[in-house]
Amino acid sequence: MAEKMTIDAAVNHVTEPDIAEEVLALGRNARQAARDLANRSSEEKDFALTAMARIVRTRSSEIVAANVRDIETAQEAGRPAAFIDRLSLTPERVEAMAAGLEEISTLPDPVGAVLAEWDRPNGLRIQRVRTPLGVIGMIYESRPNVTADAGGLCLKAGNAIVLRGGSEAHHSNWAILNCLTEGLRAAGLPESAIQMIATTDRSAVGLMLKGLEGAIDVIIPRGGKSLVARVQDEARVPVFAHLEGICHVYVDKDADLDMARDIVVNAKMRRTGICGAAETLLVDRAAAETHLQPIIDALIRAGSEVRGDEDAEAAEDRVTAATEEDWATEYLEAIISAKVVDGVDEAIEHIARFGSQHTDCIVTDNVATAEKFLTQVDSAIVLHNASTQFADGGEFGMGAEIGIATGKMHARGPVGVEQLTSFKYVVRGTGQTRPV
Amino acid sequence: MAEKMTIDAAVNHVTEPDIAEEVLALGRNARQAARDLANRSSEEKDFALTAMARIVRTRSSEIVAANVRDIETAQEAGRPAAFIDRLSLTPERVEAMAAGLEEISTLPDPVGAVLAEWDRPNGLRIQRVRTPLGVIGMIYESRPNVTADAGGLCLKAGNAIVLRGGSEAHHSNWAILNCLTEGLRAAGLPESAIQMIATTDRSAVGLMLKGLEGAIDVIIPRGGKSLVARVQDEARVPVFAHLEGICHVYVDKDADLDMARDIVVNAKMRRTGICGAAETLLVDRAAAETHLQPIIDALIRAGSEVRGDEDAEAAEDRVTAATEEDWATEYLEAIISAKVVDGVDEAIEHIARFGSQHTDCIVTDNVATAEKFLTQVDSAIVLHNASTQFADGGEFGMGAEIGIATGKMHARGPVGVEQLTSFKYVVRGTGQTRPV
Repeated sequence: MAEKMTIDAAVNHVTEPDIAEEVLALGRNARQAARDLANRSSEEKDFALTAMARIVRTRSSEIVAANVRDIETAQEAGRPAAFIDRLSLTPERVEAMAAGLEEISTLPDPVGAVLAEWDRPNGLRIQRVRTPLGVIGMIYESRPNVTADAGGLCLKAGNAIVLRGGSEAHHSNWAILNCLTEGLRAAGLPESAIQMIATTDRSAVGLMLKGLEGAIDVIIPRGGKSLVARVQDEARVPVFAHLEGICHVYVDKDADLDMARDIVVNAKMRRTGICGAAETLLVDRAAAETHLQPIIDALIRAGSEVRGDEDAEAAEDRVTAATEEDWATEYLEAIISAKVVDGVDEAIEHIARFGSQHTDCIVTDNVATAEKFLTQVDSAIVLHNASTQFADGGEFGMGAEIGIATGKMHARGPVGVEQLTSFKYVVRGTGQTRPV
Repeated sequence: MAEKMTIDAAVNHVTEPDIAEEVLALGRNARQAARDLANRSSEEKDFALTAMARIVRTRSSEIVAANVRDIETAQEAGRPAAFIDRLSLTPERVEAMAAGLEEISTLPDPVGAVLAEWDRPNGLRIQRVRTPLGVIGMIYESRPNVTADAGGLCLKAGNAIVLRGGSEAHHSNWAILNCLTEGLRAAGLPESAIQMIATTDRSAVGLMLKGLEGAIDVIIPRGGKSLVARVQDEARVPVFAHLEGICHVYVDKDADLDMARDIVVNAKMRRTGICGAAETLLVDRAAAETHLQPIIDALIRAGSEVRGDEDAEAAEDRVTAATEEDWATEYLEAIISAKVVDGVDEAIEHIARFGSQHTDCIVTDNVATAEKFLTQVDSAIVLHNASTQFADGGEFGMGAEIGIATGKMHARGPVGVEQLTSFKYVVRGTGQTRPV
């Protein structure tokens, strides 16, 4: 994937003056559009979103045809099957994009919501009110549906967005963007609210990471680990992202075996390629004799490889030896590491050392043990008796999400419409001045 | 002030290995202390805060004596009177520090507060719960009271803090820190919760700006504009700060003259050196004939110099000509720029162009005009009919503040105890797995 190899170079790449000017002009237009959007009504934004959905549906065959060109190029370049799958747009996937835009239009408008309000003894009334964040910069790889999802979510929150998709999805992304632009136009909203960087010059990414001279408020990368790592490393503006999801399921001595088995198998195997998939099973030593072998057996029968510590190896012949590296590995495939720990305290320690602060789960019938785990594990999402695969904005009831963040600032966990906002304090008085 | 001159160099300065190791070890200790603190009770933290207040009071004369040494050094170095004043600790100022720590102890503990909760159709119960942020890095100049204020606020929010005070306040800061450390010890809390960097080597600041190898979650600079600018420019971790407060008062055609005059004079002259002081007066052309001269006259009689555009010059002889630069200047003294604008729209445009997104005010009796201003001015604090000097965490009822932020991420406006926290999602289930 092009970005993976080029971002390092991009940051220090000398940009051709005309390319830089083109990209920076796009940033200025985005800033201007954001100022305009911040004051538009919910009705105008929702009108645009439903218009976009309608236009995407109408042009479904055009979008698929554009996508075929990208797929042919990718096939000629010998891209692997998983890459081609991420890139592919079937009529069903185009319909899902349209439905996603419609769903976003039905979400409550976060802008203007009063988050808190109180009165002061001197009669001042203070409100904390949600505002748009401003301009979002989105850097993504091969999935063209991100163009519609990100564009729609940012518009709903009153933000402008600057998109930089992977060059492999070039034709697909532009076909989708044209639908979004037309939807904006139909609603009388500024077309610069959703823009895509046209140049394939690698320096454009470097300019985005530097914030387009103050035009970009936050960067959201979507793609493989090396893309995200480089964006996090090089960006000079805030980044909403998760580097990886090394998610744990800890099975406590007080866990119900059937529940533990169901949750572990679901957490690992429902989908192995998503960030909320479990990568490590931790089993309480006090439950090892009863729970360890049945859970490992269920994992293996569900198709997972199991790499374990000595205890796990001893419990089940088909377990191979885990190395130290396994505890820090996000497999994203049908492999899980398994380890016996001395109770919830060692589980918490293990997660603090090897986890990625994404999503971690405890299975236990003991409420006190659960509360300890939920309080002390410092992850964006902590679950009691539920699968880690619920780490998803849709499953949280937040509507669509633009990604999941593991940073502690501003947005943590699923990043939906609300997380794409900021706030301001509105203070109403009757002539108050401040005494000396 | 030392940092102002040295941060640029610091970032690329080659650190002596033993100094780097000492500073990085301090970061690791802070991270460890933060993990410990995150799980301590409100009672333990409040016990430490009240103990700190008591010890500060007991050692008041020692603290003042240490401060005298710093002041003597500063006087020998020929520091200006304003600098000496910021540095000075009288018994009254020491008492104010102690009272501040006590006040922090009475604030509600933000950690563990449930910010939102909801149920999902599958029975999952989701809570968004406040958590500590982690480790705060504080870089500040000559005011030694920041040591106690920042230490106390961070402790209350369950955070560890790494302090880097100005070398001019060296003895004062250590005398205060010793009281804080003793309070931590009395409460059985980790002493590494509040640490100060001992080395005066300039490279320590550079290491902090890089985050002490992942140990620091956020940097808060407190000091002059050049300190803040360089921290914002060089930091590789998030920064809570305001670069400057170019605050405006817009007097609308529907403003009551007496109210406008009181607010403008208070906003400019109550204290001219604080970030919420007004720097520019904007008067609606439709009110210029009635309001402009009386307001300017009141400002001048209160001791302010007025630099105006042609209209302001024409209205009052004592107004001198403003240059383009005046509109973008934070005077922080008894000077104000004054301009006539064509109604609220031009006022909003002027503020968007020249403001610093800190605090801006409209004076008007017209609610519709006020709402337009409050909605469209993109500043951390917008006021209707109240002085900009209310831009203060204490005046907002937030208790003490560690500073004011103008960024749009995470913390905006006054940064108090709540703004020093993050959150996590806690999900409680009964064995739910996610369907395919």
